[in-house]
Amino acid sequence: MDLFICDYAEGCHPSILEALSASNLDQTHGYGMDPHCARARTLIQDACAAPHAAVHFLVSGTQTNTTVIASILRPYQGVLCADTGHINCHETGAIEATGHKVLPLPASDGKISAAQVRQAVCAHRSDHAREHTVQPGMVYISHPTEQGTLYSLEELTELSAVCHELGLPLFVDGARLGYGLMSRQSDVTLPDLARLVDVFYIGGTKVGALFGEAVVITNPALEPDFRYFIKQNGGMLAKGRLLGIQFECLFTDQLYFRLGRHADALAERIRDIFTQAGYPMLCDSPTNQQFPILPDAVYEQLRQTCEGELWAPVDGSHSVYRFCTSWATTSAAVDRLEAAVKALQS
Amino acid sequence: MDLFICDYAEGCHPSILEALSASNLDQTHGYGMDPHCARARTLIQDACAAPHAAVHFLVSGTQTNTTVIASILRPYQGVLCADTGHINCHETGAIEATGHKVLPLPASDGKISAAQVRQAVCAHRSDHAREHTVQPGMVYISHPTEQGTLYSLEELTELSAVCHELGLPLFVDGARLGYGLMSRQSDVTLPDLARLVDVFYIGGTKVGALFGEAVVITNPALEPDFRYFIKQNGGMLAKGRLLGIQFECLFTDQLYFRLGRHADALAERIRDIFTQAGYPMLCDSPTNQQFPILPDAVYEQLRQTCEGELWAPVDGSHSVYRFCTSWATTSAAVDRLEAAVKALQS
Amino acid sequence: MDLFICDYAEGCHPSILEALSASNLDQTHGYGMDPHCARARTLIQDACAAPHAAVHFLVSGTQTNTTVIASILRPYQGVLCADTGHINCHETGAIEATGHKVLPLPASDGKISAAQVRQAVCAHRSDHAREHTVQPGMVYISHPTEQGTLYSLEELTELSAVCHELGLPLFVDGARLGYGLMSRQSDVTLPDLARLVDVFYIGGTKVGALFGEAVVITNPALEPDFRYFIKQNGGMLAKGRLLGIQFECLFTDQLYFRLGRHADALAERIRDIFTQAGYPMLCDSPTNQQFPILPDAVYEQLRQTCEGELWAPVDGSHSVYRFCTSWATTSAAVDRLEAAVKALQS
Amino acid sequence: MDLFICDYAEGCHPSILEALSASNLDQTHGYGMDPHCARARTLIQDACAAPHAAVHFLVSGTQTNTTVIASILRPYQGVLCADTGHINCHETGAIEATGHKVLPLPASDGKISAAQVRQAVCAHRSDHAREHTVQPGMVYISHPTEQGTLYSLEELTELSAVCHELGLPLFVDGARLGYGLMSRQSDVTLPDLARLVDVFYIGGTKVGALFGEAVVITNPALEPDFRYFIKQNGGMLAKGRLLGIQFECLFTDQLYFRLGRHADALAERIRDIFTQAGYPMLCDSPTNQQFPILPDAVYEQLRQTCEGELWAPVDGSHSVYRFCTSWATTSAAVDRLEAAVKALQS
Repeated sequence: MDLFICDYAEGCHPSILEALSASNLDQTHGYGMDPHCARARTLIQDACAAPHAAVHFLVSGTQTNTTVIASILRPYQGVLCADTGHINCHETGAIEATGHKVLPLPASDGKISAAQVRQAVCAHRSDHAREHTVQPGMVYISHPTEQGTLYSLEELTELSAVCHELGLPLFVDGARLGYGLMSRQSDVTLPDLARLVDVFYIGGTKVGALFGEAVVITNPALEPDFRYFIKQNGGMLAKGRLLGIQFECLFTDQLYFRLGRHADALAERIRDIFTQAGYPMLCDSPTNQQFPILPDAVYEQLRQTCEGELWAPVDGSHSVYRFCTSWATTSAAVDRLEAAVKALQS
Repeated sequence: MDLFICDYAEGCHPSILEALSASNLDQTHGYGMDPHCARARTLIQDACAAPHAAVHFLVSGTQTNTTVIASILRPYQGVLCADTGHINCHETGAIEATGHKVLPLPASDGKISAAQVRQAVCAHRSDHAREHTVQPGMVYISHPTEQGTLYSLEELTELSAVCHELGLPLFVDGARLGYGLMSRQSDVTLPDLARLVDVFYIGGTKVGALFGEAVVITNPALEPDFRYFIKQNGGMLAKGRLLGIQFECLFTDQLYFRLGRHADALAERIRDIFTQAGYPMLCDSPTNQQFPILPDAVYEQLRQTCEGELWAPVDGSHSVYRFCTSWATTSAAVDRLEAAVKALQS
Repeated sequence: MDLFICDYAEGCHPSILEALSASNLDQTHGYGMDPHCARARTLIQDACAAPHAAVHFLVSGTQTNTTVIASILRPYQGVLCADTGHINCHETGAIEATGHKVLPLPASDGKISAAQVRQAVCAHRSDHAREHTVQPGMVYISHPTEQGTLYSLEELTELSAVCHELGLPLFVDGARLGYGLMSRQSDVTLPDLARLVDVFYIGGTKVGALFGEAVVITNPALEPDFRYFIKQNGGMLAKGRLLGIQFECLFTDQLYFRLGRHADALAERIRDIFTQAGYPMLCDSPTNQQFPILPDAVYEQLRQTCEGELWAPVDGSHSVYRFCTSWATTSAAVDRLEAAVKALQS
Repeated sequence: MDLFICDYAEGCHPSILEALSASNLDQTHGYGMDPHCARARTLIQDACAAPHAAVHFLVSGTQTNTTVIASILRPYQGVLCADTGHINCHETGAIEATGHKVLPLPASDGKISAAQVRQAVCAHRSDHAREHTVQPGMVYISHPTEQGTLYSLEELTELSAVCHELGLPLFVDGARLGYGLMSRQSDVTLPDLARLVDVFYIGGTKVGALFGEAVVITNPALEPDFRYFIKQNGGMLAKGRLLGIQFECLFTDQLYFRLGRHADALAERIRDIFTQAGYPMLCDSPTNQQFPILPDAVYEQLRQTCEGELWAPVDGSHSVYRFCTSWATTSAAVDRLEAAVKALQS
C-alpha cells in the first residue's frame, strides 16, 4: 500500500536523525537559546539574504499562524485571506480563539490579488460607520496555496506594494515553501520573499523535518517581544535545540531545496499520469499536491493500493481527490501508482 | 429636516419618562434585583405565554448578542448565521472577540433556511477530519432581518425542528421584534417565538425605550449562571430598575405592539411613495425599514429635507438607501417625504 | 426603611430627567455623534483644563474598565493593580475574558505606591526568563479606592512619574470621582488628574446620572481607533445622546461637584455616628463610603431600619459593613441612622 | 561544565531515537490516528489500571495545561491553584489568554489543601453577589510541585473527595510525574492518580522523551470533543506518531519509572551534598529538583563548573538556587558537583 494522502506520512530525512543522535547527550540551555538554534538562524538569514531578519522556531503550522497573527493584530482588527486559506478552513477557529475575525476574500485557484486587498481596505476606510466593522489589519497568503498553486513574482510584488502602501503587514504561510520555491513554474526565490513580505515561515514539518517551522520576521516593527507570544501560545519548545538541529540540517548543502525539487518532480509525474488517463485536474498545480477529479468508483478501486485523500465532492459520483508527494516519496511508488491507474482503464 | 436614518433617532415613549420620573427617588437594590424588573419579567412571561421562561434585561444589542452567544457555545464551536447578519457585519467582531467564529451562510433576502442549516451541520459531522474545522454550535437569525424581511411561521417552525433535531440552540435577535410581530405580513406571534426558539430578545432600544433589550430564555438548559455572563460582558446595569421600568411600560396596555404597528403602517406608506415614483426596492420589506434603490443624484436632492442612510452602492450612479420609521415617526414627516419625492419628479 | 447599601439606589438628579424630557422627541444621529455629546465633551475638557483630551461616553463601569484596558495592553501584558481593586475582585473576570492577567499588588488601605510599581516592573525586566511571565503593561488605580480612601497629590505625582519613566500608561477608575475630588481631605483637582494620568474616567452612574461614564484620554497615543474598542465591547449606545445630555447637566453650574460635596458631608456624619458610638472603622475614609466594624448582632438590629451591606467578615461575631451616601441621600435619612445607632446603645 | 539547570538539557533516552529511526520511513496517517499512538494508549491505560481512560498526546506542558483547562471551564469560571503554580507564574498568561482567571491560593511548600479548596468554593457560593466574581470551576495541582514536593496519598484523597463533593474537576500537572511516582517518599501510584483525579498528564519532555505529554482523562464527562481543543490550541502534531513512538518506549519495560528512580537517587545525593556542607534547603524535596540556599558568592564560584539556576533572591547576599537531575544525569556529574562544593569549603 502506498500513501499519497499527505506530505507528512513519514518521519524525517535521515540526516536529521543522525544529527539528533550525534548531539543527543550534549547539554544545552533550553527554549531556543542554544548554539544549534543560533547556527540555524544564521543559515536561514544567509539563505534569505536577510542578515537582519529575526528567525524564531515553532513546532507546528497552526501554532505558527496563530502566534504570528496574534502578534500583529490589534483586538478590533482582522486578517484578510483567501476563503480557501488554511486559517479560514482547517484550524478549528484558532485565529478567532485569539479574538480576531478572519476576513475571507473569494479566491481564484487559492490565491487573492492586490486589487482585492485594496478594494477591501478602501471599502472599510471609506465607510462612515467603519468602527462598527472589523478593520483589516494584515494580509495572509499561503505559498504554495492549499491548492498547490503559486504566486508569481509579479503578483507577489503587487501584493507587497499594496500592503506597504496601505500599512498592512503581509504574512506568508510557507508550510510547503520548499515545494513552492523549487517548482519549475516558480520565479520567486527565498530572498525575493524575504524582501517582499513582512513575515513568513519556512515549513519544516512537510519538507523533511520531524516537525518545525522557521518564522522569518523581516519587518523590525514586528519583532519586539515576539518570544512572549511564542510562550503564551504554547510554542516555546523546552528542548528548543531539536528545532535548531533540524533546520541546521535542512539548510546545509541545500538539502531543503533538494527535497523540494524531488517531490515536485514526482508530482509532475502524478499530474501526467492522471491527465494522460483523461481525468481533469481541479487546477494546474505546479507543486507537490495534485488534485485529479475522479469518478468515485474509480477512486475506490485505486485506493486498494494507492491511497489519496477525498478533497471535495463534485457531484453525486465524482470528487476531487488529493494526491501528494513529499521529500520521502519514491519513484517506485509513483511507478506503482501509474500502473494502478493504467490497470483501471483496461 | 426629517431624519429617516434609523429607528433610534429620538428618545423614548413619553410614558417611560413619566415612569422614570415617578420612581426617581425611590430606593431599590441594584443589578436587576428590584420590584420593577420582577414585574417586567412577569409581564413578559405573560405576553410570551411562557411562565417558566427566564427573562434578563441588558442594555444594548451588540452586548446582548455577545452575551447570549458566549453563554451557549463551547470554545471550538461557531454560530451559523446569514452572511448579512448583524453579528457578521456590524459588531466590530464582538463575537470573534469572545473566541468564536461566525459561520456565515448565503442569505436570501436576509434569511437562512432549515435546509441550509441541516446541510452545514451534516457536512461538518460527516467530515472525517471535522476536528480541524469549527463545529456549528448554534443558529442565529434576526427577526425582522437586517433587510426588514420576516420569517414565516412555517419557516420558523422548520428552523426550530431542524435545530432541535440536530441539537443546536436557535437564537433570535429581536432588536426590531415589535416591528416584525406587528407587520401585516407576519403570521408569527410572541408565544410562537417563545415556543419555537431556545432564546430570543425583545428589542427595546429601537421600539420605544431609551435603551434596553429583554432576553427571554425558554430552554432551561441555557439558563444556569446567565447572570455571570451578563456581568462579565459588562451588561449588568447598576441601576437595573431603569430596564425594568421601561419594559413595564412597554408591556402595559400593549404599548410595545401599538408602537410596532404605528411604525409599520408608516413604513408601508414610504414603500408606496418610492414604488409609485418608479423606484425599485431592494426587497419586499413588510416592516419598518424600507430600501429603495435610487439614483445617487436623486438622493442628494432628497436628503436636503429627508435624510435616509446609504446602505450599499449598486453601480456608479445608483445605490440602495435605507429609510426607517420608528415608534416616533409622525404622519406629518411621511407627508413631507412624499411631497419631497414628488417634487423631485416634476 | 433607609438604604445605605450603595451609591446607586436612586435614579438621577432631577435636572437630568428634565433635560431628557425636553429633548425627547428631537432627532439626532446615533452613537455619540450628536450635539449633546459634542457639548458635553467641551464642558469636560474645560473642567479638566485639557482642551486636547479625547472624551468618550460609555454606559457602565465594568464595561469602561474592560474597554480601556483592552485598548492599551498587548496580548502578553497584564495590568498592575491593588489586590483590592475592582477589576481584580468584582468584575467576574472581565479583564481576563479579554485575555489579560490582572497583576495584583498588596494594597494599603486600597492603595498601591509608586515604589511597588517600580519594584514589580524592575523585577520583571531583570528576569532572564521574563518571556515566561506576564509583562506589566499598565497601571490601574481607583480614586477613590474601593475602601473610600484617596491618593494624595504627592502619591499621584509619584505614581505618574514612575509610570512615565517606565513607559506604562496610568489609568484611573473614577467611578466615584466626584466624591473623591470634593472630599475635605483631597488635594487633587480634576486638572491635576488630567495632567498626571494617561486616561481616566469620570463616573456618572454613582454621582447623579442614571448611568454613564466619561472616559478622558489625555495621552494621544491611546486615542486612535478607540471607538472600535467601544463598539466591540458593547459600549456604543445607539442613543448616545442620552450620555451627552447627562454629562451636559452634570458639568453645568458645577452640579457634579456639588453632588459630590453633598454626599461627602453626609458621609462624614455617618463616620462620626459610628465612631462616637465606639465602633472602629476599617480605615479612615474621607469619601462617601464608610466601613464600620460592627458586632453582627448589632447590625441585625440596625438593618431593620437602616440597611448597609456586609463587606467582609472579621471574626465569628463581627464584620465590616459598608454604609454609603450618595448625591441623593437626605439629611433626614442620616438623622434616622443616628437615632437608630443611638437606640442600639441604650 | 556540568549543567544542573533543568531537566530538559539533553535529548532523549537512546531507545527512543532507535525507535524513531526504525520506523522513520514507514507511512502512517497523521494527527495521532496511527498504530503507535494506539499502542501507546493501551500501554498507558494498562499502567494506570484505567482501561476506559482516554489518552491524548500533546507536545508541551504549557500547551497541555492551556488545552485541558480551556476544555473544562465555562467562560466565567477560573481555576484554583497554588500561588506558586506553573500556570500562575511561568506561562506568560496563557490561561488568561483563553479568557480565564487563575485563582491563586497561598501554597505551603508548593501545595494546597482540601480545606483551602473547600473554603474558597464555599466563600464564593455563599456570596450574595457571587455573579460579580469569578466562579471557581476546577482545581489544578502539580505533582511533584514546582518546588519538588509531593502530595501524600492522604492529601490527594482528601483533595479528590472535596473536589468530587463540590463538583469541581481535579487536574494534575504531571510534567515531572515520573520523578514524583518513584520518589522514596511517595505513597502514590499511577493507578491511585488515575482513580483519584479527573484528568492528569504524564510528562515526557522532562522524563526521557524529546518532547511530549500524555493526557489521561478518566472522567468521561471531560472527554467529548477533546480533539477539537487540541487542534484549536495548536497541539495536534501532524506526525502524531512521534508522540506515540516515544510513549511506547517509555511505557515498555518500565522505562519511564526506571528513569524516574535514577534521577531521584542522584537528587538525593545532591541534597546530601548541600546539606552536609551546611547549606539549608528551601524545602524538603524528595524528587529531582533540589533548592539549596547559598551565598551568592559561593554560587558564583560553583557555577564555574556546575551550573544551577537562580530561583529567587533571599536577601542581599543569599539566594535560592535550583539544581536538577534528570534521566540523563550521570553519577560522575554528581561526583564532580560534590567535589566542587567541597572545594569551596576548604
